[in-house]
Amino acid sequence: MTIRDHFLIAHSLRGEVFGPAQGLHGATYVVDASFRRATLDADGIVVDIGRATDVLHEVVGELGYRNLDDEPELADINTTTEELARVVADRLAARARAGDLGDGGRELDGLVVTLRESHVAWASYERTL
Amino acid sequence: MTIRDHFLIAHSLRGEVFGPAQGLHGATYVVDASFRRATLDADGIVVDIGRATDVLHEVVGELGYRNLDDEPELADINTTTEELARVVADRLAARARAGDLGDGGRELDGLVVTLRESHVAWASYERTL
Amino acid sequence: MTIRDHFLIAHSLRGEVFGPAQGLHGATYVVDASFRRATLDADGIVVDIGRATDVLHEVVGELGYRNLDDEPELADINTTTEELARVVADRLAARARAGDLGDGGRELDGLVVTLRESHVAWASYERTL
Amino acid sequence: MTIRDHFLIAHSLRGEVFGPAQGLHGATYVVDASFRRATLDADGIVVDIGRATDVLHEVVGELGYRNLDDEPELADINTTTEELARVVADRLAARARAGDLGDGGRELDGLVVTLRESHVAWASYERTL
Amino acid sequence: MTIRDHFLIAHSLRGEVFGPAQGLHGATYVVDASFRRATLDADGIVVDIGRATDVLHEVVGELGYRNLDDEPELADINTTTEELARVVADRLAARARAGDLGDGGRELDGLVVTLRESHVAWASYERTL
Amino acid sequence: MTIRDHFLIAHSLRGEVFGPAQGLHGATYVVDASFRRATLDADGIVVDIGRATDVLHEVVGELGYRNLDDEPELADINTTTEELARVVADRLAARARAGDLGDGGRELDGLVVTLRESHVAWASYERTL
Repeated sequence: MTIRDHFLIAHSLRGEVFGPAQGLHGATYVVDASFRRATLDADGIVVDIGRATDVLHEVVGELGYRNLDDEPELADINTTTEELARVVADRLAARARAGDLGDGGRELDGLVVTLRESHVAWASYERTL
Repeated sequence: MTIRDHFLIAHSLRGEVFGPAQGLHGATYVVDASFRRATLDADGIVVDIGRATDVLHEVVGELGYRNLDDEPELADINTTTEELARVVADRLAARARAGDLGDGGRELDGLVVTLRESHVAWASYERTL
Repeated sequence: MTIRDHFLIAHSLRGEVFGPAQGLHGATYVVDASFRRATLDADGIVVDIGRATDVLHEVVGELGYRNLDDEPELADINTTTEELARVVADRLAARARAGDLGDGGRELDGLVVTLRESHVAWASYERTL
Repeated sequence: MTIRDHFLIAHSLRGEVFGPAQGLHGATYVVDASFRRATLDADGIVVDIGRATDVLHEVVGELGYRNLDDEPELADINTTTEELARVVADRLAARARAGDLGDGGRELDGLVVTLRESHVAWASYERTL
Repeated sequence: MTIRDHFLIAHSLRGEVFGPAQGLHGATYVVDASFRRATLDADGIVVDIGRATDVLHEVVGELGYRNLDDEPELADINTTTEELARVVADRLAARARAGDLGDGGRELDGLVVTLRESHVAWASYERTL
Repeated sequence: MTIRDHFLIAHSLRGEVFGPAQGLHGATYVVDASFRRATLDADGIVVDIGRATDVLHEVVGELGYRNLDDEPELADINTTTEELARVVADRLAARARAGDLGDGGRELDGLVVTLRESHVAWASYERTL
């Protein structure tokens, strides 16, 4: 089951490989969060889509409308699309384990988070739960 | 005839109406530039798509990978999606009149520029030529 | 300026032209609401996107998760995609005139509402304000 | 190899977790059916796309333009997007095994069916063959 | 009201402006045909979507799976995206006037045909009826 | 990490299963190339997106604006969407192994190439590296 949200950030990237993206710029990330499990729950769902939508909105809300260069918890990483996909996936995984997705969230097998940065480039991060 | 490109910027918006977007953040703008004329040229086209693609790429390249808050020529405006659509359209119009789109570019009747800031929000600016 | 939302309904259509759609079925309508004005306001926007998003969500919320065959205020019409686009546009127009979109909403020149019923069919309704 | 079709249904969902979706409403499901095999056949294809398109159209035609609450063979399940993806996948699998996709259909390794219920939510079901 | 179909063709384009597209190549054209009228008919529709879908399928079927360089009725034109949009629109207009879209088809005010040749380029042709 | 490009070709397909596609026609292939690795490199990326974009553009440039029926290196295969996805993937893999994607390209675990031939049909080829 997959839901879509988005967030808007400023950032810069460290490393010659990034060329002009070493300067301060920004991006819209359209986020697809996929929740996986082997069998559906008694209601016939993977996870409560209402809760999942709310939790995803909170997780991307902690990143959106910010300059990521100023975020202490992101100081150790380059905030590439790949890394941010991992950050979102890890935070969703923590919320699932904490029960914020309901009981069904604790029975998830895995997560995939895709961040689309334009119509021609995106990155995904897949992890178990 | 419409072509698509994109650019990535940082900016902030001035005014209470913008809420959290008053802080420094950023966006990907996927740009659709439409060129209109009443009748096609002798080659059966609106405008040379190769030239139009190059000119659009140059115009969005003057905006992309920048913090728009630091751009002198944008200092007078709020760099909203609406205003940026107008900026891109006006710059394309100037390039068309200057002959950068070839002779066909001088015979255009109008332009529409659409900037998509996410999967759920976009803005268009339409002008004559 | 355009924003996107969606709603889910059940309905049936009256008339032989509708074939199997005369039976009770349903649809997801992905709604694009476009707000038009000749010049931007002092903030550089067409209308407050936050208010517009909330109002659109309320308007489609009055239709969504319902069997439209049971809605008294829709009893006079066939709830085709075309008619529902008009209903959404007219309700948005009334909300704009009532000031629910802020002062900028009163300065709008026009509205276009597009309802997408599938990846291969959609309908638009355009009106002045 | 993936092909796309769609169907329109009415239904209601049983369980408090569904909130307003417990009432009779409906949805458009845009269906992506993916057919997988390790190596291509002698014609260089996964499966005859013409046959696959026809069979998918028949399978979704058995669901479309109906109130799923009244379908005896769906009485045991909640007709969530997840469950319906499984139903479509299982019916395609049965048709493949029966030879309705041609000889190539019997050599498929697996199927994935994705049902998109809106621009922000979809569900997939993956199975072997 | 808009419906979508597609067709696949080979062709070459005459004129230096087309660069490598002067050689024999091809394209998928995803076609959006929009039918316009000022007021809906008694059934609450612009035109019978079933008939319109069939007629559009026939019109694009006369172009698809062909080398357009060999089509006598296209010999006078360069088969650019722009020209082909006009061809499809004119043929739909002729079919509408001939009554093939039903009585509603004779009450249409206009048509717009958009041909999408890739994710970054498309062309539209608009005409009255 | 995935990037998108496209190419335009003419071709015909051998075999009764292809029906009208046995005649000379063509297609636009929108290409999504996905690069996979278990862990990101020191810059926080899968692969240098600039190099990957250039290499993908070169690989599809060797196919685009051609009649594939005349390409000697494709003479042994039917140039179906499935086969062409494999060709693009194999050529990208060779380029990655040759170092054309930089050092990161040599650390890739796998590739997936998807060719979209229309809004309703596409094919993917997945391989290790």
